Amino acid sequence: MQASLTPQIALRHTIRESDREAIRGMVQRTGFFSAEETAIAVELVDEALRDGPGSGYEFLIAEGSEGLLGYACMGPIPGTNGSADLYWLVVDPAAQGQGIGQRIMAAAEEHLRSRGVRKLFVDTSGKPQYFPTIRFYERCGFVQEARLEDFFGIGDPKIIFSKRLS
Amino acid sequence: MQASLTPQIALRHTIRESDREAIRGMVQRTGFFSAEETAIAVELVDEALRDGPGSGYEFLIAEGSEGLLGYACMGPIPGTNGSADLYWLVVDPAAQGQGIGQRIMAAAEEHLRSRGVRKLFVDTSGKPQYFPTIRFYERCGFVQEARLEDFFGIGDPKIIFSKRLS
Repeated sequence: MQASLTPQIALRHTIRESDREAIRGMVQRTGFFSAEETAIAVELVDEALRDGPGSGYEFLIAEGSEGLLGYACMGPIPGTNGSADLYWLVVDPAAQGQGIGQRIMAAAEEHLRSRGVRKLFVDTSGKPQYFPTIRFYERCGFVQEARLEDFFGIGDPKIIFSKRLS
Repeated sequence: MQASLTPQIALRHTIRESDREAIRGMVQRTGFFSAEETAIAVELVDEALRDGPGSGYEFLIAEGSEGLLGYACMGPIPGTNGSADLYWLVVDPAAQGQGIGQRIMAAAEEHLRSRGVRKLFVDTSGKPQYFPTIRFYERCGFVQEARLEDFFGIGDPKIIFSKRLS
C-alpha cells in the first residue's frame, strides 16, 4: 500500500529491514527520548519485522526524496473489540513544522478505521516538556479522557487521550 | 519465600511447573473468563517459568492442604518509577467467600511495597458482571481513577483503579 499525499511525501505500511536504523537515528535526533525509550522503539520494529501482523504492531512510514521523514506505530489493543493504541508518532526534527505529523496521524486513523477500529488511544506524560505533544494531539482532535496521578513517577502523571474514529 | 498466614493457607512467590495446569483449571472453573483470557493467564505463567523476573511477571500463589486456592500475577510497569500493575487475582470458586482474595491482595501489596512500588493499578471492565470485582477492589482500598468509555467494546468501559502503597 502506498499513497502519495504530495509530490514530496509517500506513505507506506510495509516495514523494511532498512527502516530499523533509520528509525533509531530519527528517534535519537529528536533529543526527546531516553536510551531505554529508543531501545523500545527499535524493539517494536524488530518484532514487526520478525512476526509481521502477529506482532500486534503496525507501522506507517513517511518518506521524502531524502529518506525517512517520520513514522507511526500502532496496533489493536488485545482483548478489545475496536480499540487501538498509537504507540509512537515521530517526525524527524529537520522535517517538523510542516504538518507531516498531522498527515501521518490522518493516514493512521484512516488505516485503523478501515480495519474496524472505533476508538484510538494515545498515552503521554503530563510533564511540561510534553505540552507540545499534548497540543499536537488536541489539534488532531483527541480529547483527554483520563489522568493517572504519579504514574510515571512522583509528580509525573499519565494522560490518556482518545479519539473516536467512527 | 514462604509465609504461613493461618494453619490452612501458605503463600509462596516462586512459580512452579505444576502450577501451570492448576492455574488453567482454576481460571476455567471460575466460569468468568473467556478461552482467550484463560490462554493469556497461562501464557503469563509460561513467561514467568521461562524468563523468571526478566518476564516482568511476578506471581503470588496461595495454597491449602488440597492444593491451589488462588493466585495473583503482578509486575512493575515498564517506563515508570514506582508503579505496578495487578494483572490477575483469582480465587478458586470452591474457596471464595473466606477472605482469601483479600489476603492475597494484602500480601501482594506488601511484596510490591518492599520492592519500592508506590502505586498499584488494576483495570477492570465496567459491565454489570464485574460489579462484584469492582466492590472487591473498593473493599481492598482501591479508588476509581479513570473510566475509558467504549474501551473493550461499545458500552463496555475500562475502569482503572489505583491504590497508593506508600
